[in-house]
Amino acid sequence: MKVTVWNEFRHEKQDEEVRAVYPDGIHEAIAGFLKEAGFEAGTATLDEPEHGLTEEVLKNTDVLVWWGHMAHGEVSDAIVERVHARVLEGMGLIVLHSGHFSKIFKKLMGTSCDLKWREAGENERLWVVQPNHPIAEGIGETIELEHEEMYGEHFDIPVPDELVFVSWFKGGEVFRSGCVFNRGQGKIFYFRPGHETFPTYYHADVQRVIKNAVNYVAPTKREQPIRGNVQPLESLD
Amino acid sequence: MKVTVWNEFRHEKQDEEVRAVYPDGIHEAIAGFLKEAGFEAGTATLDEPEHGLTEEVLKNTDVLVWWGHMAHGEVSDAIVERVHARVLEGMGLIVLHSGHFSKIFKKLMGTSCDLKWREAGENERLWVVQPNHPIAEGIGETIELEHEEMYGEHFDIPVPDELVFVSWFKGGEVFRSGCVFNRGQGKIFYFRPGHETFPTYYHADVQRVIKNAVNYVAPTKREQPIRGNVQPLESLD
Amino acid sequence: MKVTVWNEFRHEKQDEEVRAVYPDGIHEAIAGFLKEAGFEAGTATLDEPEHGLTEEVLKNTDVLVWWGHMAHGEVSDAIVERVHARVLEGMGLIVLHSGHFSKIFKKLMGTSCDLKWREAGENERLWVVQPNHPIAEGIGETIELEHEEMYGEHFDIPVPDELVFVSWFKGGEVFRSGCVFNRGQGKIFYFRPGHETFPTYYHADVQRVIKNAVNYVAPTKREQPIRGNVQPLESLD
Amino acid sequence: MKVTVWNEFRHEKQDEEVRAVYPDGIHEAIAGFLKEAGFEAGTATLDEPEHGLTEEVLKNTDVLVWWGHMAHGEVSDAIVERVHARVLEGMGLIVLHSGHFSKIFKKLMGTSCDLKWREAGENERLWVVQPNHPIAEGIGETIELEHEEMYGEHFDIPVPDELVFVSWFKGGEVFRSGCVFNRGQGKIFYFRPGHETFPTYYHADVQRVIKNAVNYVAPTKREQPIRGNVQPLESLD
Repeated sequence: MKVTVWNEFRHEKQDEEVRAVYPDGIHEAIAGFLKEAGFEAGTATLDEPEHGLTEEVLKNTDVLVWWGHMAHGEVSDAIVERVHARVLEGMGLIVLHSGHFSKIFKKLMGTSCDLKWREAGENERLWVVQPNHPIAEGIGETIELEHEEMYGEHFDIPVPDELVFVSWFKGGEVFRSGCVFNRGQGKIFYFRPGHETFPTYYHADVQRVIKNAVNYVAPTKREQPIRGNVQPLESLD
Repeated sequence: MKVTVWNEFRHEKQDEEVRAVYPDGIHEAIAGFLKEAGFEAGTATLDEPEHGLTEEVLKNTDVLVWWGHMAHGEVSDAIVERVHARVLEGMGLIVLHSGHFSKIFKKLMGTSCDLKWREAGENERLWVVQPNHPIAEGIGETIELEHEEMYGEHFDIPVPDELVFVSWFKGGEVFRSGCVFNRGQGKIFYFRPGHETFPTYYHADVQRVIKNAVNYVAPTKREQPIRGNVQPLESLD
Repeated sequence: MKVTVWNEFRHEKQDEEVRAVYPDGIHEAIAGFLKEAGFEAGTATLDEPEHGLTEEVLKNTDVLVWWGHMAHGEVSDAIVERVHARVLEGMGLIVLHSGHFSKIFKKLMGTSCDLKWREAGENERLWVVQPNHPIAEGIGETIELEHEEMYGEHFDIPVPDELVFVSWFKGGEVFRSGCVFNRGQGKIFYFRPGHETFPTYYHADVQRVIKNAVNYVAPTKREQPIRGNVQPLESLD
Repeated sequence: MKVTVWNEFRHEKQDEEVRAVYPDGIHEAIAGFLKEAGFEAGTATLDEPEHGLTEEVLKNTDVLVWWGHMAHGEVSDAIVERVHARVLEGMGLIVLHSGHFSKIFKKLMGTSCDLKWREAGENERLWVVQPNHPIAEGIGETIELEHEEMYGEHFDIPVPDELVFVSWFKGGEVFRSGCVFNRGQGKIFYFRPGHETFPTYYHADVQRVIKNAVNYVAPTKREQPIRGNVQPLESLD
């Protein structure tokens, strides 16, 4: 299983507070625990040529993890098309936190993907609402995050095919925090937590969810569907 | 309830066989039975300025019906964006037959919307698979169409939020023929039948489905959701 | 549209605190605002013969509203079977609050319908998570209830066909508070609020939701599906 | 992974035509290919004490496969309750063909589970309609069965949480043939093919689907949810 962790990798360079939390970047933190779990995990970042997402890299990626925030607009449309095509072909995609506003997620959803937000460092509690879901394996009834950015409803996404987590925020909001979507041969998991100033990706339960999700959105091995003009399979007489 | 029936209106001008079936265009045939049913129904076509879909027209449209086929590529991206924004704002959208490949449908779905097809004039039987659905009101257990173009699975759409009809084709294929999708404040209904060379839109059951669908996808009257940065509703202490 | 509001009507007789809130019973409070809205609304209660749900009454009921709590076990299995058959035949069913543990709801769901609860009178905030849903028409982005019993996840129901509301509770829980389920020709809406010691059913938004839901779960007018042994519709040669 | 294959095992004893196809019973045919695939597979049949489904057996079963037809009514209600409880606790359940009318399936669905049928030995073609689904791994775009009993819509089940296969029958019907349902901690897969007089369970694709399904509905390893009366997790002041 080959995972590529993509990060725009800007906050970490520009903001000391973020660098203090993720000195090598969010992508290295995530790739690190994936490797420890036995996945073959590489990284790619915005400022590399082709954002590190060449045809070759994508062809060899089973699951792509996406973290972006301040530079969504700098991701080239051509690369977005390339990633989109690979998802429809079967590559799994895990979109994290502020990736809700990435070009690729909006293109796959067909909606604005807008939401409410507040940076107050309040606590977040993610409740498991589909307890038989493989993405929740090994997770207790909640995931407790001491400090996080708040995201609130209405989150402008299509109705998720599977809703795994719903978040409670101290300030009074709720949020659909763990959502599975099917698109073409691909599977997509959106997972809310992960503001850049908090050590969320070091949290054991958050890591467990991401590892479970990599397995869950991994490609199903089948031939690509046949489409276009076809002859009848039965007599038309 | 204000309905706008949009048609690219090219086949009818270029092809005598089609003109023989729909002398005033598919849009007039559809707008006709909608008016008879008491809806306020206007039309718009590709070759009008702004494809007939000005800001004013869309602002005053509760439900937009879309038929297109040979000229999807000529629909301007700016108009597609405008229609997309209106759907997210609440306007209902009914996409007919070959409209599966329209820019607006693909943008709302996030997938290729590709499928199998065959023009052999075989018979099609649409089975009601959600019998309590308002779009199937007044419809028997099947809709029988003597001659239609075949569309076959796999139809590359997201999993429909509601699946109302599944088609059987003599040549051996099945198809998810009546599908509801929610996007933003809007509702979308895709309905398969309606090849331009067959008198499908004169069929009483097909008309009934489209009339039911207009009512079903009509906007829900609510204020637009509030998004962006917000203050807490509860004390954070 | 004929609505029958069923209430076990025991708390109101036995407990002065409840009687102070609903002197004529919860059923009369609900039937009252439904009548004002133009629905033909009758009532039925546990201690009437056949619990007030005779064949005649059910045959003439388009939508049944159900409130029960302390006496679920006293509802006869035969009446539960009768209601179940009518739902599958098309009658709408609205299950309120503690009705989650009623025999009829558990039979229709196939699960335990168990949940977490706490009677602390904390505030509840219901968030609209499907903003285009007709049951949310006229409702703002939240419904604010000053004092309610808490119900928390995991709520052991099948995945709802439509999820309209998610509740936030001050004590830290969330709950899927407004859920639509399809069963046979019938539609079911579960709506969480309505503890007997609070004036919840006098709240304008709660009344609006219940009125919207009556319209939403009303029967779709179609013939009953044909089942059993059938002849082929096409030649088998 | 421990699989128990349950079969009522009556047709094979009473009917020579069936015995010719499944000399040791359908359960042995299914357990056979599961064992070859590396699963630990046992069997249980109606006429054993407790139908072979003792507390001990069920406790040690990860996935239960169910085939029944002529003797649904002889399955004791107590055993049905026991199986039901185990599904809610997390045991996977695969219901095959005429098992649609078993007590356990009806109890889990909450509907009549009725359908159309015809024994004419016509051909059936199952189309994959969710091509990224793990249950369809290794399957081409269709499964072709030369002779099968027909099952037709409307199939009175709740809307499936996942719809993997839709069948085409020569006689003109369609059927939702591969359906996933979530109930409690458990997952259920209904798979249509498997009439007792045809060698369906020797078909490589049918075997592949059942093997995939065993993996898919296997229990997710998590603690059971906590329910009942709970203390607040946050201050109520």
